[in-house]
Amino acid sequence: MTKEIVLTGVTTTGTPHLGNYVGAIRPAIEASRQENTESYFFLADYHALIKCQDPERVKQSRLEIAATWLACGLDTDKATFYRQSDIPEISELNWLLTCVTAKGLMNRAHAYKGAVDENLANEQDPDFGITMGLFCYPVLMAADILTFNAHKVPVGRDQIQHIEMARDIAGRFNHLFGEHFVLPEAVVGEEGSILKGLDGRKMSKSYNNTIPLFDTEKKLQKGINKIKTNLLEPGEAKDPSDSTVFEIYQAFATPEQTQEMRQKFADGIAWGEAKKELFTLVNGQLSEPREKYLELIANPAHVEEILQAGAEKARARARGRIADLRNAVGLVNFN
Amino acid sequence: MTKEIVLTGVTTTGTPHLGNYVGAIRPAIEASRQENTESYFFLADYHALIKCQDPERVKQSRLEIAATWLACGLDTDKATFYRQSDIPEISELNWLLTCVTAKGLMNRAHAYKGAVDENLANEQDPDFGITMGLFCYPVLMAADILTFNAHKVPVGRDQIQHIEMARDIAGRFNHLFGEHFVLPEAVVGEEGSILKGLDGRKMSKSYNNTIPLFDTEKKLQKGINKIKTNLLEPGEAKDPSDSTVFEIYQAFATPEQTQEMRQKFADGIAWGEAKKELFTLVNGQLSEPREKYLELIANPAHVEEILQAGAEKARARARGRIADLRNAVGLVNFN
Repeated sequence: MTKEIVLTGVTTTGTPHLGNYVGAIRPAIEASRQENTESYFFLADYHALIKCQDPERVKQSRLEIAATWLACGLDTDKATFYRQSDIPEISELNWLLTCVTAKGLMNRAHAYKGAVDENLANEQDPDFGITMGLFCYPVLMAADILTFNAHKVPVGRDQIQHIEMARDIAGRFNHLFGEHFVLPEAVVGEEGSILKGLDGRKMSKSYNNTIPLFDTEKKLQKGINKIKTNLLEPGEAKDPSDSTVFEIYQAFATPEQTQEMRQKFADGIAWGEAKKELFTLVNGQLSEPREKYLELIANPAHVEEILQAGAEKARARARGRIADLRNAVGLVNFN
Repeated sequence: MTKEIVLTGVTTTGTPHLGNYVGAIRPAIEASRQENTESYFFLADYHALIKCQDPERVKQSRLEIAATWLACGLDTDKATFYRQSDIPEISELNWLLTCVTAKGLMNRAHAYKGAVDENLANEQDPDFGITMGLFCYPVLMAADILTFNAHKVPVGRDQIQHIEMARDIAGRFNHLFGEHFVLPEAVVGEEGSILKGLDGRKMSKSYNNTIPLFDTEKKLQKGINKIKTNLLEPGEAKDPSDSTVFEIYQAFATPEQTQEMRQKFADGIAWGEAKKELFTLVNGQLSEPREKYLELIANPAHVEEILQAGAEKARARARGRIADLRNAVGLVNFN
């Protein structure tokens, strides 16, 4: 039986937070343990360059994100873990795909259209401040996926269109040059996996409302203490369905623990007390990976070794693929 | 003294004709013999994929063009001769440059605008049938040039804008990440170097008015016999300034030979006679390279060897360059 290939990319511009952990890292690592899947995880550092022109930030984020995934238990013997920019075959395929992609398809990309709408609202030129990186990004993402012929790509709702575009581009190439590509499918996480942040909105770097994943214990505690609550006093019953504290608790708790906390809310637990219990729960689960994380961050050469081995593994696969694809378009050696 | 780097690319979709020889191949090979220049010649096969989705055509054209340049005397010990698609560093740089290129710059490219105008004239969607390959092509061309920090790029008039765009992109990268790129300059050939074709228009594949460079002697003769002339009889004086036969003769003749032919025109040489002399002159210069060309075409493995050696030479240079550029944007190894 051929295994199902699942591919996950993480853009390396930020520092992982609790929301990333619950929504992406933990479920992806769990899924990668399944016997019938072959998992590819990559640091999307070429994508990072679209948004981030601060080399230090790019560099730091790559290390932090690599260390996070390893500390959270990614098994690199089973999964293939690499940096996008270490796989030259991806940029090569990016060009082959560029040549078969209709410009009209890119014109319809949400991210690009959003930027244009904002410019129009500000009475600017429609393409003001828009780079070719932003415009071409869906083609590179198609190359990420199609280099390995991934069947499934776990994404957030905002990324579904990109997977559809990858299917479209793959289909066009297949039509022109023969059946080389599997049409990838988006796998969208459950609604519940999107964690709320300090202010009750979705936890996201762009809202500046995150709780860092592997900062010190003290910072984790401070973060949790800053979660917005209402003004209900101790002894007054509280509504768990309207509480970020409860929601985060639930994301880390067993069903039994969740049930107990629900009861405590009904019984009027004080917010301070609830936050203390939240901290204890989360910190209990994070303290061991945090230690691993700090060890890895202190030993970047070791992380480098792991990523180099991962790149070799990925390239062993990519090389054969790209050779076939070059052949298909006529870029063959003479003999 | 650092040598001046001159870079020339040839798109591999056609079969070389007399116009290519006089306008591009011969002057470029002559220039590459100068002591103070370092020449890069490449087969632009990634660019070929934009226009040509026939793998056999791409494959055949690469071989024919490689064999042509070698047969015409390109000294690969002195010049660096390679296929674009053999240099992965070019596609890597293509992405780094994509991230710093303003979309507005590409909107203004003549080739793209021409295609849009044609669509509008036909009451089509502006981007109808336009691929991302056509739209992104100037970025790839900038990568071709900037990978080797070329100072000079010999081009036709229609390509000047692309060199300006490469300068613009290089300047933007330098501004963001430090002075990494030389700003390249276009070198536009003399007007006289553009040969006329059978019908008196510029000799070009797209006009279907070419005389092949290295087809058989018989085909060369046939081609020359088809050159359009006027109805003047033998004995009637003819105007050399209005004659494609004279123009092609001049492109191959010494000044003395040209002077003699001018006299013969004044004396009323018959068109058939003039064409016979033209054939003798051109064939005399082409018969030796034609023999070499046929040998090379019959031995593609040998051409492959030469190109592999060229790719190695080019990559030895490109690798160090791309390492610096990756460093500059933050794609550094951990240590």
